[in-house]
Amino acid sequence: MSGFAAVDVIRTKRDGGVLADAQIDWVVDAYTRGLVADEQMSALAMAILLRGMTLPEIARWTAAMIASGERLDLSAVDRPTVDKHSTGGVGDKITLPLTPLVAACGAAVPQLSGRGLGHTGGTLDKLESIPGWRASLTNDEFLTQLREVGAVICAAGAGLAPADRKLYALRDVTGTVEAIPLIASSIMSKKIAEGTGALVLDVKVGSGAFMKSVDQARELARTMVGLGGAHGVRTVALLTDMSTPLGLAVGNAVEVAESVEVLAGGGPADVVELTLALAREMLDAAGLPDADPAAALRDGRAMDAWRAMVKAQGGDPDAPMPKANEVEVVRAEADGFVAAVDAYAIGVAAWRLGAGRARKEDPVSVPAGVVLHRRPGDPVRAGEPLYELRAEDAARIPAARAEAAEAVRITQTAPAATPLVIERIA
Amino acid sequence: MSGFAAVDVIRTKRDGGVLADAQIDWVVDAYTRGLVADEQMSALAMAILLRGMTLPEIARWTAAMIASGERLDLSAVDRPTVDKHSTGGVGDKITLPLTPLVAACGAAVPQLSGRGLGHTGGTLDKLESIPGWRASLTNDEFLTQLREVGAVICAAGAGLAPADRKLYALRDVTGTVEAIPLIASSIMSKKIAEGTGALVLDVKVGSGAFMKSVDQARELARTMVGLGGAHGVRTVALLTDMSTPLGLAVGNAVEVAESVEVLAGGGPADVVELTLALAREMLDAAGLPDADPAAALRDGRAMDAWRAMVKAQGGDPDAPMPKANEVEVVRAEADGFVAAVDAYAIGVAAWRLGAGRARKEDPVSVPAGVVLHRRPGDPVRAGEPLYELRAEDAARIPAARAEAAEAVRITQTAPAATPLVIERIA
Repeated sequence: MSGFAAVDVIRTKRDGGVLADAQIDWVVDAYTRGLVADEQMSALAMAILLRGMTLPEIARWTAAMIASGERLDLSAVDRPTVDKHSTGGVGDKITLPLTPLVAACGAAVPQLSGRGLGHTGGTLDKLESIPGWRASLTNDEFLTQLREVGAVICAAGAGLAPADRKLYALRDVTGTVEAIPLIASSIMSKKIAEGTGALVLDVKVGSGAFMKSVDQARELARTMVGLGGAHGVRTVALLTDMSTPLGLAVGNAVEVAESVEVLAGGGPADVVELTLALAREMLDAAGLPDADPAAALRDGRAMDAWRAMVKAQGGDPDAPMPKANEVEVVRAEADGFVAAVDAYAIGVAAWRLGAGRARKEDPVSVPAGVVLHRRPGDPVRAGEPLYELRAEDAARIPAARAEAAEAVRITQTAPAATPLVIERIA
Repeated sequence: MSGFAAVDVIRTKRDGGVLADAQIDWVVDAYTRGLVADEQMSALAMAILLRGMTLPEIARWTAAMIASGERLDLSAVDRPTVDKHSTGGVGDKITLPLTPLVAACGAAVPQLSGRGLGHTGGTLDKLESIPGWRASLTNDEFLTQLREVGAVICAAGAGLAPADRKLYALRDVTGTVEAIPLIASSIMSKKIAEGTGALVLDVKVGSGAFMKSVDQARELARTMVGLGGAHGVRTVALLTDMSTPLGLAVGNAVEVAESVEVLAGGGPADVVELTLALAREMLDAAGLPDADPAAALRDGRAMDAWRAMVKAQGGDPDAPMPKANEVEVVRAEADGFVAAVDAYAIGVAAWRLGAGRARKEDPVSVPAGVVLHRRPGDPVRAGEPLYELRAEDAARIPAARAEAAEAVRITQTAPAATPLVIERIA
C-alpha cells in the first residue's frame, strides 16, 4: 500500500499544503528503504521545489534524513567542535588552510567533505594531490585524529544520512537540485549527523556559485541557520562573493600549493581574508572568541597543524606534487586594468583541463588547472600573462581556451573594489 | 547523454517556460523507448501540472504521443466515422446504447474503450457481462466490423499511443493524474490515433466525476476541442452533470440490462436524454444532421444494430446474465423527497461490492452493483426501497452499506430540477 500513501504525500505538497510530521518521517524512511519509488520521490521533489516548505517542515525533513543513518558522537573530544561548510565555488580551497588553523587555535574541526562534480572542485580531490594521503577513515580513526590533532578532513562515511545520498543522486537527474528546502536539508543533515557542536556556513553568491543572486543566497543561509538552531547546532552564515575565483589557483595540486602558502603566512590577500574571517566566526561559535588566528598563521602553529593532519592520514607534506606537461600562457591584448575574471568561465575551463569530473566515476587530473597571473583591480600591459592553462593532455587545451577566452575583461580605468564578505547571518 | 537533455527539458518547464517542439518530440519518444527514466518523466509531469502548457505545446505533445505508435486508417469505411469519449462517471453506460444507435442512423462508430479502475466502471467490463462477448479484436476484425455493422466497441490495441499507456501508469502512482494538459493529450492521442473523423466528448462534472467544478471541466473541454481541431478531427464537447449516477443501475450486468431497455425504447429518462443528446451531436459532427435518433430507438433499428454488434464479437444478446446471490434492500427511514443521490458514494459502494477493481489485474464481478429505486426528485415513503446492494459475496455488503449510507438525502420539499447537459463547447 506504500504507493497509495506516497501519492497522498505528493498530492498534499502539490496542492500547496504543509506536510505533516508523520508524512515526512514516513516518506523519507520509506524512500531510503526502497518502498517509495524514485519516480514518486522525484515528483515530490518537484512539488517541493515549486511549492516550497515551511521552516518546521524543512527541520522535520532534515531530522528524518539524519534518522536514516548514524549520528556521530563527538563527546569524547575534549575540545569544542566546530565545522565549516561552503556551498561551493571556483578556487575555493579555504577548507585546506582553515581546518588546521582553527585546530591550532584550540577547537576541533570534524570536516567531512565531498568530491567535486561539474565546475567546482572537491576538497577531497584537492587533498588527494598529496602523495600518500587517504580520504577514507574509519569512525575510530576519525575520532582518534580529531582528539589528537584537532583537525580531520575526510570522506563522509556511507552511514551518515543515507537518505540524502540517495535523494541527491535523484535530484541531480530530475531537475530538482535547485530547491532551497532540499539544498538546506541536504547540507544540514550531513553536518548535524557528523556531530559538530557549531557550524559556520560560507554561502557563495555570484557567477561561479550555485546561488546567482544575494536574495537566493540569503534565503538559503537563513534556512540553514534556522535548521542548525532547530537541531541544537550553533550556526552562523557568511554570504561571500563568488563572481571571481578565490585566489590565483583553480585546480587540485595548484590549490594545495596555494593553501600551503597561506599556512606559511603568505598567499593571495582574498584567500587570507576569507580564511581569517571564517576562522574568527568558527572560533567565536566554538566559545573561543579570544583566539588569534592571524597570529597562528604568522607563527607557524597553523602550518604545524596542517602537517600533523596530512601525516595522520598517510600524506607526505614535503613530497613534490606532479607538474603539468602542457602549459599555455594567455596574455593581455591591450594595456589597462583587469575589471573582472569570471568565476564560472574559469571553473569550466579548469574542468575542461581535467581538474574536475563530468561523471561521478571519472578520475581527476592532479596537476591540471588554471593559474591566474592577474586578479580584478590589477593593472596589466599588452603581452603580459593573464593566466595559464595547465593540463596533462594537450588535447584538453583548446576547449579550455575557448571557455576562458571571455573570462577576463580589461578596461581603461581601475574597477571599484567589491567586498568579499557580503553579509553575516546568525 | 539523454539524462542531460532530459534535465534541460524539465528545467524549462519547471521555470515556467514553453517547451520547444523538438524538446517535446524528443522527450516523448525517448521516454517511450526507455531513454528518459521514469523519475525524470514524473518530475516533468509534476512541472507540467504546476506550470501548465500552452495549447500549441499540448497539441505537439499529443502529436508526439500519436507518433509513438500506429494511427489507424479508416478510409476503407464508406460511412462517416464519429466517436464519443466520456471522462467517466458513475452509472455511465451511455456508450452501450449510443454506439449502435449512431450506427443505425448512418455513421460508423469506432469506439476503442478501456477498463475501469476505482469508482467508475469500464465499458469493456460491462460488455463482458454478455456471455461469449470478447473485447479484443485484430485491426482487420475491427475494420471489417466497422464496415459491415457500423458499430464496434473493443479494447484499444497496444499499438495505439504506447507513450500514453506508459505515461498514464506513471502518472497514476506519482500524483500527476490531475494535470489538464496531460489528461487532454492522453484522451485525444488515443482518439486521434484510432482514426475517427469526428469526436464528441462527454466531460463529466460533479462528485462522481474526475472534474469537480464546471471551471475545470470547461478548461479540459476547451483544451480537447482545440486539440481535435489542431489534428483535423471535428470535436464538440458537452459538459454534463455527474453529481448523481446516470440511470438506476451501477455495475456491470445491471448496466447492460439498463442499456438494452433504452435500446428497446424504454429506460430511465436521464439515460435516454443523454444518449439522444450525444447521438445528435455525433450525427451532426458526422455530417448527418437530418438523422433522427429518437426514431431509431422507437422503431427498433438501434436494437438491431446492438444485436449485430454484440454477435459480431461472439456475444449472445439473448443469453441470460448471472444474478447476484446476495441482495440487500435499503429503505427510506422517513417520508419525503429524494433530494440527492451522491454519485461518488454510490460509485464507491458498487466498487466495494465487486463491480470495480482496485488494481489493474483484479477481476470484476458480473452481477455486483447498486440498483437505485429512487432518483433525485422522486417522492418516497418511509419503508419503501431506496436502493439495492448486490454482490456475489456477502462479505462485501457491509463496506458497501457504509459507503452508501450517506449517499441518499431525503427532504420534505421536492428539490429544484438541475439540467443534465450543462454547456456545449465547440
